[in-house]
Amino acid sequence: MFSSSLRSKALFPVVCGSMWCRMSAQASAEASPSVAPKLKVGVAQIVVGGDKTVNMNRAKSAIEEAKRKGADLVILPECWNSPYSTKSFPEYAEILPSVGGKTSEAKSPSTDMLCKVAKANNVWLVGGSIPEREVCTDASPDKIYNTSLVIDADGNVVGKHRKVHLFDIDIKGRMTFKESDSLSAGNSITTVSTPWGLVGLGICYDLRFPELAAAMREKGCKMLFYPGAFNMVTGPLHWELLQRARAVDNQLFVVSCSPARVK
Amino acid sequence: MFSSSLRSKALFPVVCGSMWCRMSAQASAEASPSVAPKLKVGVAQIVVGGDKTVNMNRAKSAIEEAKRKGADLVILPECWNSPYSTKSFPEYAEILPSVGGKTSEAKSPSTDMLCKVAKANNVWLVGGSIPEREVCTDASPDKIYNTSLVIDADGNVVGKHRKVHLFDIDIKGRMTFKESDSLSAGNSITTVSTPWGLVGLGICYDLRFPELAAAMREKGCKMLFYPGAFNMVTGPLHWELLQRARAVDNQLFVVSCSPARVK
Repeated sequence: MFSSSLRSKALFPVVCGSMWCRMSAQASAEASPSVAPKLKVGVAQIVVGGDKTVNMNRAKSAIEEAKRKGADLVILPECWNSPYSTKSFPEYAEILPSVGGKTSEAKSPSTDMLCKVAKANNVWLVGGSIPEREVCTDASPDKIYNTSLVIDADGNVVGKHRKVHLFDIDIKGRMTFKESDSLSAGNSITTVSTPWGLVGLGICYDLRFPELAAAMREKGCKMLFYPGAFNMVTGPLHWELLQRARAVDNQLFVVSCSPARVK
Repeated sequence: MFSSSLRSKALFPVVCGSMWCRMSAQASAEASPSVAPKLKVGVAQIVVGGDKTVNMNRAKSAIEEAKRKGADLVILPECWNSPYSTKSFPEYAEILPSVGGKTSEAKSPSTDMLCKVAKANNVWLVGGSIPEREVCTDASPDKIYNTSLVIDADGNVVGKHRKVHLFDIDIKGRMTFKESDSLSAGNSITTVSTPWGLVGLGICYDLRFPELAAAMREKGCKMLFYPGAFNMVTGPLHWELLQRARAVDNQLFVVSCSPARVK
């Protein structure tokens, strides 16, 4: 497996670097080389701001640049079309297709763009995540999920993961965040068949739970993808450590992508 | 919890430092402070050579020095009384007591020394590990285990762990080692009740397996001890990483101790 981060300083002012390259080497020290064709991954650590159209253009440009540099698959960060706040999630949320389903610019401009860019560039996408609105048919309020779509090189939605572990944290005086204020949790283990083997999908805080990674390994995954948006309190403590631990413990490759941090 | 490595350059020319200090801080970022009394641990990273008597004297001196510096508990490395080779293990092996059992200088000079030093210094010991001979009563050959004893401050054997995961490795051109050539594997999860809470015990390569640590956490362990003797091939890749991962994933403290490396 060949790996490259494909980030440029201009496009992707990176916070965490691409630990997964080291992790790949880490995992391969013991793992058998069972992932058949070579895979070059682009890690599109874009800046995410308050303007959804700007975010979408950045994502599109990053995917195109990664493709030009030889990527077969590009991963975007968590919540790449929306500011990371529980108030923003409902506002930026879109109605997402199911696996095998179609979308439209009206229902989900972000997904529509991803599908078109994937097809136009013949590239696979782990489309980071975006807030997903699930319209309830009864009197209940809509549910909002933090959802990642995998899109194949023909522009088809082939994978969908709703973040299972919501980040509800309260470290006195340092950090308080409660995703469950506006988000609902997924309850599924998500794997996707790709030309490079079965891959597993988690979102950010899902990485914190070794049982999920072990379950994906048990299903036969050769690689795990974690779009993330770790913070600067638990991030320095956990982001690299947990990626490397999942890779070594489960003898597979781990790829993650965080948004850029603007200093 | 206060931690200290208590190593001096003269006594403990250290290879791996004391990662567990960082790990303790790591774990405490999320863990509740449920370990009641303060505990100061001495990590006695002694040099291990071919002369058992010298090894025993070094261990004794290190324990005494750690106690002088305030340690409540001292941990020794894996196989601290024997060279680390499958040929040496049967030669250096001793007949070890069970939990609650007594020993003698004739049966196990190493254990006898540990019990006496523990009592004389009123200090707990995670006595690293030594090769253990299990005398078979039928015509079968004796079995040799890699065994760790925990000894309380009264000199009683209160815990006994036989290494479960034997280190059979074959990395072409880099490292080949097959512990199972002379060692038998333990098959038990080992926990010990201490004044500082329930602690779990693993030996070296046991650290590689997250399921064992998770099982000890499920039993209520607040702290895991791993005497080790990692090598310089997988050591730099795994030694620190796995300790920190076990600490964060299981929200407990991890203490390990490797022998010194003579450069």
